[in-house]
Amino acid sequence: MAMEYQSYIPFWDRLTADQQERIGEVIRYQKVKKGTFIHDSEADCLGLVVVRSGQLRAYMLSEDGREITISRLLEYDVTLLSASCAMPDMQFDVMIEAEKDSEFWSIPACLFKNLSDESLAVSNYSRNLLSNNYSELMWLMEQIMWKSFDKRLAEFLLEEVRLEDSPVLQITHERIANHMGTAREVVTRMLRYFQSEGLVRLTRGSIEIVSEEKLEKLR
Amino acid sequence: MAMEYQSYIPFWDRLTADQQERIGEVIRYQKVKKGTFIHDSEADCLGLVVVRSGQLRAYMLSEDGREITISRLLEYDVTLLSASCAMPDMQFDVMIEAEKDSEFWSIPACLFKNLSDESLAVSNYSRNLLSNNYSELMWLMEQIMWKSFDKRLAEFLLEEVRLEDSPVLQITHERIANHMGTAREVVTRMLRYFQSEGLVRLTRGSIEIVSEEKLEKLR
Repeated sequence: MAMEYQSYIPFWDRLTADQQERIGEVIRYQKVKKGTFIHDSEADCLGLVVVRSGQLRAYMLSEDGREITISRLLEYDVTLLSASCAMPDMQFDVMIEAEKDSEFWSIPACLFKNLSDESLAVSNYSRNLLSNNYSELMWLMEQIMWKSFDKRLAEFLLEEVRLEDSPVLQITHERIANHMGTAREVVTRMLRYFQSEGLVRLTRGSIEIVSEEKLEKLR
Repeated sequence: MAMEYQSYIPFWDRLTADQQERIGEVIRYQKVKKGTFIHDSEADCLGLVVVRSGQLRAYMLSEDGREITISRLLEYDVTLLSASCAMPDMQFDVMIEAEKDSEFWSIPACLFKNLSDESLAVSNYSRNLLSNNYSELMWLMEQIMWKSFDKRLAEFLLEEVRLEDSPVLQITHERIANHMGTAREVVTRMLRYFQSEGLVRLTRGSIEIVSEEKLEKLR
């Protein structure tokens, strides 16, 4: 297991033997339970995170405790959001938590910064990752700015069905509100409307998707 | 004039003579009047833009014509937002217009992409620029998500005073709404409230800042 991270690091084959060795010396493997906080940009700087299994969630946190999900990371995904201290001008607060039992590796921020500065392959890789992240953030902002909440919620529920591979979602309204950057009441009101329209069925602690087609149409 | 762009290109001194020559062959100088649209990501891909003088504004445009300002570019500023076609996964619609009479150079996207791929200096530069842009966008999103509109408007007015170097702003409420991604009525209502509190004085077509201190306090 200790030696298999190579196939999860997208730029591995383009590193020199020396660079590979430096990563091997400090790369850290972690196995965490669902619900574990793995990164708090105010408190630490984990470095580049490479997901082996499970599901991580990166989110913004407001001063008064409100949340909005920025991105979700699955197997083979890599994120720089936990390495913001290695980037110039990356000053923002991002938290990362495990949404499912997860395994991941982390490459310390300072080593990753050094590799990016000295290796064209790593620099190009992180440039592409950043441009991808930027594009995702623009998309999210467009959603928040211009898209009505019913469409956003329909999209969120369909994404959850895909991630959970099940039409029955074990998720609270509070939790959905935290993903979407809104208040619980807003989510509850819209879910009740969805139920009256025959899109979902609400039970204690779960949401059953009754008609994916209708949700798709709404999206 | 044709030869002075060198001092405006931050990574110029770290290019090879050949790379400098390739830029010299295709770099384009433009002088535009206030109000000119210089980039529409749906229609074209201008490339890397380097501002010589004036003021440019990059903004998102919704399908139904609503706007929000993403960033403003002054002398010596460089932007990749007009070179999104050269970035993988950079799929979003950004417009750029001249807010004042402006002069700028553009380096075609494909050349800039090639330089980024082959030169560690250029790759590192655009990586840093992207991480800066990402951070700015996160900041903007935090403002939109968590900050009340009165604070955002106070901040916008103070920024305008700084950019215009004058306490009297020749700007319409509609224009402010376009910067802030909201409706004109919302801006008008808040400005009237600011006037009643002695922060600004409203006249036809202009807004006079009466008390910068009170605005500062609000921010």
